[in-house]
Amino acid sequence: MDRRKFLTGAAVGGAAVAVSAPAIAQKRKEMAIVSTWPKGLPGLGVSAERLAARIPVLTEGRIVTTYYESGKKADKLGEFDHVRNGDSEAYIGADYYWKGKHPGLAYFTAVPFGLTFAEMDAWMRFGGGQELYDKLTDQFGLKSLPCGNTGVQMGGWFRKEIEAPEDLAELKMRIPGFGGDVMSKLGVATQTLAGGDIYKALQDNTIDATEWVGPLNDYSMKFFEVAKYYYYPGMHEPGAQLTLGVNKKFWSDLSDLDREILTSACREENINQFSEANARNGAFLKKLTEEEGVELKEFSDELYDAFGEKAQEVFEEVRQHDALTNEIHESFVAARTEIGRWMKLADIAYSEKRNRVLDI
Amino acid sequence: MDRRKFLTGAAVGGAAVAVSAPAIAQKRKEMAIVSTWPKGLPGLGVSAERLAARIPVLTEGRIVTTYYESGKKADKLGEFDHVRNGDSEAYIGADYYWKGKHPGLAYFTAVPFGLTFAEMDAWMRFGGGQELYDKLTDQFGLKSLPCGNTGVQMGGWFRKEIEAPEDLAELKMRIPGFGGDVMSKLGVATQTLAGGDIYKALQDNTIDATEWVGPLNDYSMKFFEVAKYYYYPGMHEPGAQLTLGVNKKFWSDLSDLDREILTSACREENINQFSEANARNGAFLKKLTEEEGVELKEFSDELYDAFGEKAQEVFEEVRQHDALTNEIHESFVAARTEIGRWMKLADIAYSEKRNRVLDI
Repeated sequence: MDRRKFLTGAAVGGAAVAVSAPAIAQKRKEMAIVSTWPKGLPGLGVSAERLAARIPVLTEGRIVTTYYESGKKADKLGEFDHVRNGDSEAYIGADYYWKGKHPGLAYFTAVPFGLTFAEMDAWMRFGGGQELYDKLTDQFGLKSLPCGNTGVQMGGWFRKEIEAPEDLAELKMRIPGFGGDVMSKLGVATQTLAGGDIYKALQDNTIDATEWVGPLNDYSMKFFEVAKYYYYPGMHEPGAQLTLGVNKKFWSDLSDLDREILTSACREENINQFSEANARNGAFLKKLTEEEGVELKEFSDELYDAFGEKAQEVFEEVRQHDALTNEIHESFVAARTEIGRWMKLADIAYSEKRNRVLDI
Repeated sequence: MDRRKFLTGAAVGGAAVAVSAPAIAQKRKEMAIVSTWPKGLPGLGVSAERLAARIPVLTEGRIVTTYYESGKKADKLGEFDHVRNGDSEAYIGADYYWKGKHPGLAYFTAVPFGLTFAEMDAWMRFGGGQELYDKLTDQFGLKSLPCGNTGVQMGGWFRKEIEAPEDLAELKMRIPGFGGDVMSKLGVATQTLAGGDIYKALQDNTIDATEWVGPLNDYSMKFFEVAKYYYYPGMHEPGAQLTLGVNKKFWSDLSDLDREILTSACREENINQFSEANARNGAFLKKLTEEEGVELKEFSDELYDAFGEKAQEVFEEVRQHDALTNEIHESFVAARTEIGRWMKLADIAYSEKRNRVLDI
């Protein structure tokens, strides 16, 4: 099955009775959602499907959604243009896939040495981030709403140990976004492969290493069968934010009420995806290390220094693109410093102290 | 003004037109919300008022809310019983105020050496927390929905420096909840004062120290005028979760649709409050230290070891209360260990490494 149609009640048992006669009398809007994820993909896919099912429930069936997994209605990684053109009403995916269209898009997914979920959400909602995102994607005829976050991602799967920057030279690695650009500067031959093609590439030695997401997502991809070293923490995606990209014409034709409800549903799923990953990653990491012989490794400070230096070079190039990219970059850097300094005293300092005392 | 009535459109400019004739024809439900916060209190109060205004917008006016600040309709700290009795439809507050009714309630606000926001939300939504909360507050005729989180709180305001456990002996401090019990075991004479009474108590030397929330919330309380040492991180409330406690009869009489929308609105505000605090705490901390001469101090490891030992004693007593408290305690401890171990590799490890490289 390649698509799922969600009507009110489809997701909540007997709730079909909640569709009142007056609501049915209103004109129903069909909303096709094209996804960048395969059907049922743990974490990312499950989250996208949960949002697609939630919209008709909360709008009392005024908006009926049909969810298409990756590649079924739009071309793979062509979802952005597909929705701009009005061929579907919305996509769910990671906007940094389209950084070639505008580098500013990457800041609203994840950038190297970027924001954690808590920092990103604070910036988006209360620090001017959403306003800049609106300014950017309005140019593409889209209204873009954050609708999920992976949390800090793992650094990736490697066949050999990586201790120092020299160990990265001539490595072939699947890593997209600006994180990939950082790796390129360290001598890595980087590639962007769709999720479904990575395992085979590792098996065929077309690549030596790959990043994906975290234990919950990665377990189902079976990378552990072909690469045993699993590094943390990823510098490249410290909280990848996913987007519901809505065709602007469709968005504008919605009632004020339905725009508010869509916004609310996306904010709900934004934290849901993050929390589901956090609730389950620990158990999946345990399965990987205890049942599959995966070796968990921490990136060295030496590597992080090198990543940091190259990330700075990437940013200096990126911000030259245009005035808006520079404006986004400066807002991002200010948020990282100011919110980051607060988090350092709060969640970070507390977690360190508690974990030391309790041996967590 | 002691209350605010929210109809659809009250909060969103011209959106009153969105109230369609069919919606008006349905029976409107009046929902009085009694709050534990004074009107307009930065952080906590603003968040509660935002939620009260959001409910009629998202329900298209089917639920009309009236928000009463602390002490105006229910007795101060009497909101829990007031709503149980059906005198209002809901309260917004911190459930640990009522730990005397059942100690299990404290676990759903904050306990010493407890969960950060990310850990708490993962436990509540995907780790069995909400199911235990339902089991607990159903006994009191309530449906309880998390609707805000302060994030990690500051350790408190002190007139003198606190370096070692001995410095706490004979101190008089305002600190409620199990955190207060931990302090009592270290020789502190603890008190629970309502927010509005704390400043005067400090001024009159009735107390020597107080905890409250964090920079955004504390600034408006002007504690800096009477106590200069501001300690972090608080061991007592590492992410205080706030609750919309809904009268169960009112909840049961709502349509499935409106129960879903209330749930969604609460999840939206849960992350909103956390993100607003994170976005603004940094700037307010700067004002406190640079303009008001506040001295920012970190609790020593020696103190944290003492806090940890006494917290363990408090938990051993608390869990004896009844089988449900013990069940909640065990679920909480398992979540703290498993989710905590994941966060240590993810948001915590990443933030440490990034902050070291960037000197944040």
